[in-house]
Amino acid sequence: MQLSLLTQLRQQNPVVLNISNFVTVQDVANGLNAIGASPIMSEEVAEAEALVQMSGAVALNLGAFTQQQLTQIRQTGKLANQYHKPLIVDPVAIGAVAYRRTIATQLLQDFQVDIIRGNAGEIAALADVTWQAKGIDAGAGDGDLVAIAQAAAQKQHCVVILSGPTDVITDGQRVVQIQNGTPLFQLHVGSGDMLSSIVAAFAAVSAGDYFTAAQTACLVFASAGERVAAQLSQERPGTFAAQLIDELHLITTEAVAQIARYTVGKDE
Amino acid sequence: MQLSLLTQLRQQNPVVLNISNFVTVQDVANGLNAIGASPIMSEEVAEAEALVQMSGAVALNLGAFTQQQLTQIRQTGKLANQYHKPLIVDPVAIGAVAYRRTIATQLLQDFQVDIIRGNAGEIAALADVTWQAKGIDAGAGDGDLVAIAQAAAQKQHCVVILSGPTDVITDGQRVVQIQNGTPLFQLHVGSGDMLSSIVAAFAAVSAGDYFTAAQTACLVFASAGERVAAQLSQERPGTFAAQLIDELHLITTEAVAQIARYTVGKDE
Amino acid sequence: MQLSLLTQLRQQNPVVLNISNFVTVQDVANGLNAIGASPIMSEEVAEAEALVQMSGAVALNLGAFTQQQLTQIRQTGKLANQYHKPLIVDPVAIGAVAYRRTIATQLLQDFQVDIIRGNAGEIAALADVTWQAKGIDAGAGDGDLVAIAQAAAQKQHCVVILSGPTDVITDGQRVVQIQNGTPLFQLHVGSGDMLSSIVAAFAAVSAGDYFTAAQTACLVFASAGERVAAQLSQERPGTFAAQLIDELHLITTEAVAQIARYTVGKDE
Repeated sequence: MQLSLLTQLRQQNPVVLNISNFVTVQDVANGLNAIGASPIMSEEVAEAEALVQMSGAVALNLGAFTQQQLTQIRQTGKLANQYHKPLIVDPVAIGAVAYRRTIATQLLQDFQVDIIRGNAGEIAALADVTWQAKGIDAGAGDGDLVAIAQAAAQKQHCVVILSGPTDVITDGQRVVQIQNGTPLFQLHVGSGDMLSSIVAAFAAVSAGDYFTAAQTACLVFASAGERVAAQLSQERPGTFAAQLIDELHLITTEAVAQIARYTVGKDE
Repeated sequence: MQLSLLTQLRQQNPVVLNISNFVTVQDVANGLNAIGASPIMSEEVAEAEALVQMSGAVALNLGAFTQQQLTQIRQTGKLANQYHKPLIVDPVAIGAVAYRRTIATQLLQDFQVDIIRGNAGEIAALADVTWQAKGIDAGAGDGDLVAIAQAAAQKQHCVVILSGPTDVITDGQRVVQIQNGTPLFQLHVGSGDMLSSIVAAFAAVSAGDYFTAAQTACLVFASAGERVAAQLSQERPGTFAAQLIDELHLITTEAVAQIARYTVGKDE
Repeated sequence: MQLSLLTQLRQQNPVVLNISNFVTVQDVANGLNAIGASPIMSEEVAEAEALVQMSGAVALNLGAFTQQQLTQIRQTGKLANQYHKPLIVDPVAIGAVAYRRTIATQLLQDFQVDIIRGNAGEIAALADVTWQAKGIDAGAGDGDLVAIAQAAAQKQHCVVILSGPTDVITDGQRVVQIQNGTPLFQLHVGSGDMLSSIVAAFAAVSAGDYFTAAQTACLVFASAGERVAAQLSQERPGTFAAQLIDELHLITTEAVAQIARYTVGKDE
């Protein structure tokens, strides 16, 4: 865990290129902007190379894409590899929709990802573990979440973030588990998409240590949500969404350190 | 009216597939999520069959589509019929834009809709009644709104919701009118889109009684808006939008029952 | 400066057609609606002529478009000229992305624009002035902003708005500078997109005086933001975004006049 990455992010203001989910794109842009990064979104392959070159990291969201956008996604992923930019993938709903799983599997052979972030159903699908995913939701299953995340990381040769009530971050061997957070994240569509792009922003300033970047991004994001939720007397998902943007801008490394609850290793 | 449908919706958490209006898609997803459904959005016809199969209802928004998306909309509508999933259509701006009206008329011949929700201008267009529609707004006309809604329902062989200061819900014969609501709905773009998808969520748990599903969804939605507006000292459309999401999550059947104002039949 | 345009806007409720940036489209629609205009968004060229005819002004946002949308953008721009509708262009990120600059330059030869609104990096690119633009942000440069805006206006034969801590509005000769505003605008993605479309709404009711329309729109928008920021004890970009929509609806000409700070001419 390296909270100074948050300070560096705010000093360096890295450009993060997003091939985004059209459902949540404005929220993701605002989340990136609030935490201190400079978001850029694109749907046009003709500008992919220029945008990758000017970016500090690239986040590919595999939710809600069309056949046409696939060309752009594939090209952007390859360019991120070519220009050695950190590449983050969010495999939205691949646990629930066979088509998305097939496409995601193909894409992950076309380029090398540095960090994958998904919920239990999505990461289980990547690890070929049976899971009852449900639409965009995590669904339910009996598997050992740490083992599933590790299997996915080993298979994909990258860092994996399995988001949930407890976030599991692993490079296949090492494991960090973060207990901060709030159930309000599940009540706001796009919390996961926003986290994935914020992970990219941390990766952009991490000098290649993606395991540390991933866990620090998750801790900051979960702590921001927890701090907002603590101020609400009721479960207010709309108010939460607006105040989460506030808090991503306001939260300090000291505030995160004060409430941080995480464990290093497989046991919670 | 059957308020227990709200309880069932929250227990069953139905997946609602949306072919959505790109203008308001995130807001619609958050509204569905807040009330207790599981939203999924798609722009890709290749996954249409899988998504329809896993859904409890399908909502097609005819606002702001491209020629390409038409293929997806038509295919998804036919699949909803084939798999006997409740099908809701929102004919955005067909009263104002001849092109949208032509396309909507064609689509409504390609599949059988269960519920149509629109404003006065949109429903008048479906009923072939002259009306001064204006862009996305309802516009103005002298017609009898109940008669217009009934004519549209009879012509389309489905339940029709004519939204406005008073919501008119009819299956062509029976009529329910809901007086709850707030002018703030008109000040927030996408209120109608959100209601259409929430109607789909109620239809998903209604065991085929779409007339009851439609009126209950309208009553819950209008009551949620009214409760939020009652707490605001001024007309604040931005704050209203965030707190409407809060209230869709928090509102109870008791709270709705307490303020419900509706009449059964043609006379208000 | 002509604050009565705000009153006229609210009385006339002009339809504003937007070819919008998919990142910020809902926010722009809500901003237009809140201030008193009637927004319509489209991605389909087949309805372009009908939509231009029914509109009081047309706003083209060049952020995040695809090759396909270019056809629609070009056609809509030409139709706006043909039907003598005020045409506003927002050249998003053309200072940072060569591809966008090339396309924008071509488009500006295909139709005549009435008002261009951009940040320093974008306007510098139009004026062929060297500038360190950064993604969607203004970037940094040493140029004289008034001279840059004037050069761009002369080159494009239109009114230019250079947005920033001080807004510069010029028709190439005359200059107005507005000092109202808040740094929170930069913290909310889409503030510039929203302003561009609101400028279109003012142009729609300006009887062809686009220099006055542009400066009045900027003053109202900057004042609304400043009034919201003044009520916040901390920099809260999420809360700011929601309350900006509130204030666009609530703000009066008297409230604007009370805090207006602007200078006529080149010296601040």
